[in-house]
Amino acid sequence: MKKTNVLYQHGTLALLVPGLLAGTLKMEDLLKHGDTGIGTGEGLDGELIILDGIAYQVDSAGKVNLVSPEFTMPFANSHYADYQKVTTIANASPVDFEKAALQGRPNSNTFFSVLVKGTFSYMKTRAVVKSERPFSTLAETAQKQSIFEAKDVTGTFLSYYSPALFNGAAVAGYHNHFLASDHSIGGHVLDFKIAEGTLFVQTFDTLEQHLPVDNSEFSAHDFSKDDIAGIISQVE
Amino acid sequence: MKKTNVLYQHGTLALLVPGLLAGTLKMEDLLKHGDTGIGTGEGLDGELIILDGIAYQVDSAGKVNLVSPEFTMPFANSHYADYQKVTTIANASPVDFEKAALQGRPNSNTFFSVLVKGTFSYMKTRAVVKSERPFSTLAETAQKQSIFEAKDVTGTFLSYYSPALFNGAAVAGYHNHFLASDHSIGGHVLDFKIAEGTLFVQTFDTLEQHLPVDNSEFSAHDFSKDDIAGIISQVE
Repeated sequence: MKKTNVLYQHGTLALLVPGLLAGTLKMEDLLKHGDTGIGTGEGLDGELIILDGIAYQVDSAGKVNLVSPEFTMPFANSHYADYQKVTTIANASPVDFEKAALQGRPNSNTFFSVLVKGTFSYMKTRAVVKSERPFSTLAETAQKQSIFEAKDVTGTFLSYYSPALFNGAAVAGYHNHFLASDHSIGGHVLDFKIAEGTLFVQTFDTLEQHLPVDNSEFSAHDFSKDDIAGIISQVE
Repeated sequence: MKKTNVLYQHGTLALLVPGLLAGTLKMEDLLKHGDTGIGTGEGLDGELIILDGIAYQVDSAGKVNLVSPEFTMPFANSHYADYQKVTTIANASPVDFEKAALQGRPNSNTFFSVLVKGTFSYMKTRAVVKSERPFSTLAETAQKQSIFEAKDVTGTFLSYYSPALFNGAAVAGYHNHFLASDHSIGGHVLDFKIAEGTLFVQTFDTLEQHLPVDNSEFSAHDFSKDDIAGIISQVE
């Protein structure tokens, strides 16, 4: 039975901060927990988006690749789509989007996902260049990124909202990825404007947080000296 | 199939801080996720310990009661026991216990449970007096507690360790409950000394965090003004 109330997450954003970028989950295993999701590859190898059970990678050249089952990730999440249409949205800034998705609440104490299907008058994304071992910190690795921009592009915007309490495990607030219908642009969203679109929401009552306990670097790392919240707000 | 790699948690410690003490999960539902666990009842109604599938409540009079299936809880966790014996332990303080359970690591980045079966030369526990609506904050409610002490008592000490990253969702570090074999004492452990015992550990790779999304007080609460970490360290 596919549980549509569960958000599955492998790894934490916190482990990326000191550079624990080893791929510790295969895509074929992430897809056992959902048909929709986001993530990144080993060494921050591009930006991932899973739609309708198909996993895409936007690499640092801006190319959209199909992801192989053996592809490994340090951090990713997935869930089984069961979105409810909330509203149509037009001429909307990121702030407008965030308000619309929260449906009048100032914030949310639970996890939810938002999907916007439509046309974007502006889209700005990034994809990180894959780094090799020995991995540097998140702040250093994320400096090597490509920025992409497009105007008047149609596509799917996939967002996950995490409550403030779970900042560090995930990104508090919204974490947005995008894929153009014609694959001309995609990646981790830095800025956008919605021309017109339909906004769907799916609320979760459960976070299934999976940790890479068999990875010795993760198990041995002392996180107490890492500025997790500071680096996340700087990079994400 | 019983998943022995999963720690199930309903609610968060953070929601107790402002006094969101409504019972939002029934014991019969908690027991669908494990045969071993700890928690508290609505209004901080005593201290719970689940051993071998049987749920006990230590109330503020020090009495050990069997918990009914309909009993509700704001915060609790359970898992299916599959402990591995680590060591025998004798004449051990809390610091000795913590070191032994961590098996040489300075801390742990994943969740695990520890069971000590044996004789305790000293045991000091508490159980909170159930409060009624409108509920006060955790700090105020927890002031109305009974303290129990015993010497040379045999029983089961059940502990859960949570990584620092998840402080607020759970208690970072160890959270310990106890039940004497003869039910003469039990509750949330404040201090102890192990005369001699056997120490068992079970490590989890997954936290299944369930949130009371149908509770309107939880959904509407603004946690941003709550001193979650400060109150937890003061009360737990």
